[in-house]
Amino acid sequence: MSLRGFSRRRLLGAAGAGTALVGAGVAGGYLAGSSGAEDPAPGQATVPFRGVHQAGIVTPAQDRLHFVALDVTATGPILRPAVVALLKRWTTAAERMTAGAEAAPGGAVNRNPAAPPSDTGEALDLPAASLTLTFGIGGSLLDKLGLPRPAALAELPPFQRDQLDPALSGGDLCIQACADDPQVAVHAVRNLVRTGFGTTAVRWSQLGFGRTSSTSTVQQTHRNLFGFKDGTNNLKAEDKAALDEHVWVPASEGPPWMTGGTYLVARRIRMHVETWDRTSLTEQESLTGRTKGTGAPIGATEEFAPIDLTSPLIADDAHIRLASASSLGGVRILRRGYNFVDGSDGAGHLNAGLFFLAFMRDPQRQFVPMQSALARHDRMMEYIEHTGSAVFACPPGLADGAYWGQPLLEA
Amino acid sequence: MSLRGFSRRRLLGAAGAGTALVGAGVAGGYLAGSSGAEDPAPGQATVPFRGVHQAGIVTPAQDRLHFVALDVTATGPILRPAVVALLKRWTTAAERMTAGAEAAPGGAVNRNPAAPPSDTGEALDLPAASLTLTFGIGGSLLDKLGLPRPAALAELPPFQRDQLDPALSGGDLCIQACADDPQVAVHAVRNLVRTGFGTTAVRWSQLGFGRTSSTSTVQQTHRNLFGFKDGTNNLKAEDKAALDEHVWVPASEGPPWMTGGTYLVARRIRMHVETWDRTSLTEQESLTGRTKGTGAPIGATEEFAPIDLTSPLIADDAHIRLASASSLGGVRILRRGYNFVDGSDGAGHLNAGLFFLAFMRDPQRQFVPMQSALARHDRMMEYIEHTGSAVFACPPGLADGAYWGQPLLEA
Repeated sequence: MSLRGFSRRRLLGAAGAGTALVGAGVAGGYLAGSSGAEDPAPGQATVPFRGVHQAGIVTPAQDRLHFVALDVTATGPILRPAVVALLKRWTTAAERMTAGAEAAPGGAVNRNPAAPPSDTGEALDLPAASLTLTFGIGGSLLDKLGLPRPAALAELPPFQRDQLDPALSGGDLCIQACADDPQVAVHAVRNLVRTGFGTTAVRWSQLGFGRTSSTSTVQQTHRNLFGFKDGTNNLKAEDKAALDEHVWVPASEGPPWMTGGTYLVARRIRMHVETWDRTSLTEQESLTGRTKGTGAPIGATEEFAPIDLTSPLIADDAHIRLASASSLGGVRILRRGYNFVDGSDGAGHLNAGLFFLAFMRDPQRQFVPMQSALARHDRMMEYIEHTGSAVFACPPGLADGAYWGQPLLEA
Repeated sequence: MSLRGFSRRRLLGAAGAGTALVGAGVAGGYLAGSSGAEDPAPGQATVPFRGVHQAGIVTPAQDRLHFVALDVTATGPILRPAVVALLKRWTTAAERMTAGAEAAPGGAVNRNPAAPPSDTGEALDLPAASLTLTFGIGGSLLDKLGLPRPAALAELPPFQRDQLDPALSGGDLCIQACADDPQVAVHAVRNLVRTGFGTTAVRWSQLGFGRTSSTSTVQQTHRNLFGFKDGTNNLKAEDKAALDEHVWVPASEGPPWMTGGTYLVARRIRMHVETWDRTSLTEQESLTGRTKGTGAPIGATEEFAPIDLTSPLIADDAHIRLASASSLGGVRILRRGYNFVDGSDGAGHLNAGLFFLAFMRDPQRQFVPMQSALARHDRMMEYIEHTGSAVFACPPGLADGAYWGQPLLEA
């Protein structure tokens, strides 16, 4: 089956508009949007929606992001049924869109022209573009529902130098859309936001590009806006033992609805690139602990050379030393961040930085000690500012017929 | 010469860090970043920097945009020499970056590690990605320099329903960076902004994606965030007679430094997509005058079918009727806009829209009557809001050795 020229409309034409479509396209598995001899054209790949874990976590990081945090506006006795109904609608729409179909049957070119179209249409000619939609639940929603928060979903403590903007923090629910094409990611978020109208409202939303942390050994390490390769020592999809140890919540840890799930920490990190750009290469490399060109630890020549923490070339307060697992009692996380530029800041500078996304088994035992150490000792903090923060519980993947959040809401 | 794996660092390694690099890569001409049997891999193409006209105007529209407007902060007797010196530095850096090189010799991995690197580094591993950098001069800069404004560069009049934010409007200078990769466009703008430090400061900045107006017959028409194909009737690079009539400033029109140049009108148009999404397909198509699926004028079946303005199917206030050349006494413009989502608006909605960019021979005789008619009669105005506005004079392309703005500043 050739998928060149594959688009939502052709898909609809060939197979009808029903849910039979779902899962059509190139099966890729979580670990590869495309692989082997029959590589689809760029953008044509699809990533399966259902599985043991949610897609978009260890899926090789796509290059474009649209992330949205929403608040539930429904209250009182309709709160719970409204949330359940929305999560069912979202699941159906998300599964369709990740398969390259429109958000709902009928689509942008509605069969009933007197009604609003059931899809907004801007992705009508575009393929699935490896779209993944990853869903998370904020502690504030559990509070509203009167359900207990897992200990791992406790609020993060304040960290030194935090400059958090409440308007860019928190949220009852989140959706992370990653794709090869920004218009596909934006279309997916927008149609889910639209589906939530009356039950949810957008709290904050963040676009990103140029993934800074590869999540697979088949990917090269990209660069952040300080110009350094970022995420060289990231956990990788291929290291399943490490993922089990650091990312997936085991049954022994509870609650039951989170077994096989993971926690997402999102931090909007403004980078003062203008200040950074005025520092010397020596200073930049000293702060980082790596060479700018190859990304190798200072004193080594290869990017993936092991970090020799006994080396006097790696400063006591170098970022790679402070963030290393051995400095943190073995703590590791799966990073999946993106660069951003959000226009300008009104003070003559670009509003640029890193939208830090990381998945882990327990933020309290992993992110909190890591960020505490960095906030206290990392000299790179002089060049950055954490302006947004949120934590979400990302439940496990869905079996056939299940909907997002079902084990929580039907427990 | 195979360009697979081509990157700034390899280019530097192969050819040294001097200006000999400039122009290396795949020659494409203004009309094609790539063409013919030896198509480079996506992202590998380069677009020539010098020529009769500036690149980035009729160059087939790349999919990613970073646009920046800057104010000159230098004042008094140093103003003019500072601007001249900056425009020379910018020209050198822009020519290097469009060829896929770093912003300056030495680059991100500086030969003098005690000095700040001469390139910020985040595009170190990336190819030229069809980068174009297009330069414009605002009327406010001419005022500051004590130079006369061409009549075509007069301020735009206020239009009905304008909701302009001064912080998103105007500017002494602008740079439009278009590329196949957002990180390449962002890198270019950031390094030019950095080069301007002490002489200029960022006034506003806008990212965009999913070009909504094709500028070449070889491109498909993309969709805006209302889900409609946008720019079907756009001027195209291949129609040189129409470009001469509507886009390029002829010698007869003056001033001499603008012969072969063009004027850029930039309008940030917020689109209230949530309201739009609640209207029926019939209403959406009636407002637009086209069908949503194919983009054909209502009553026709092909996107590029001529618009029959005698047809009663096309409403009196349909957008395509009001914006048609025959309704506007023959006025046409070259559109080159991009979709945007700038996070959320704090009121539960996405801050989304169209960043309208259009090139024309005289905004007073082209954009002003067009926008006046649309602002008065176009019912689509109920769903949109113009929140930013700027006009820039984009001088002609550069001969060998010339720098941006030279004919103006040395006249």
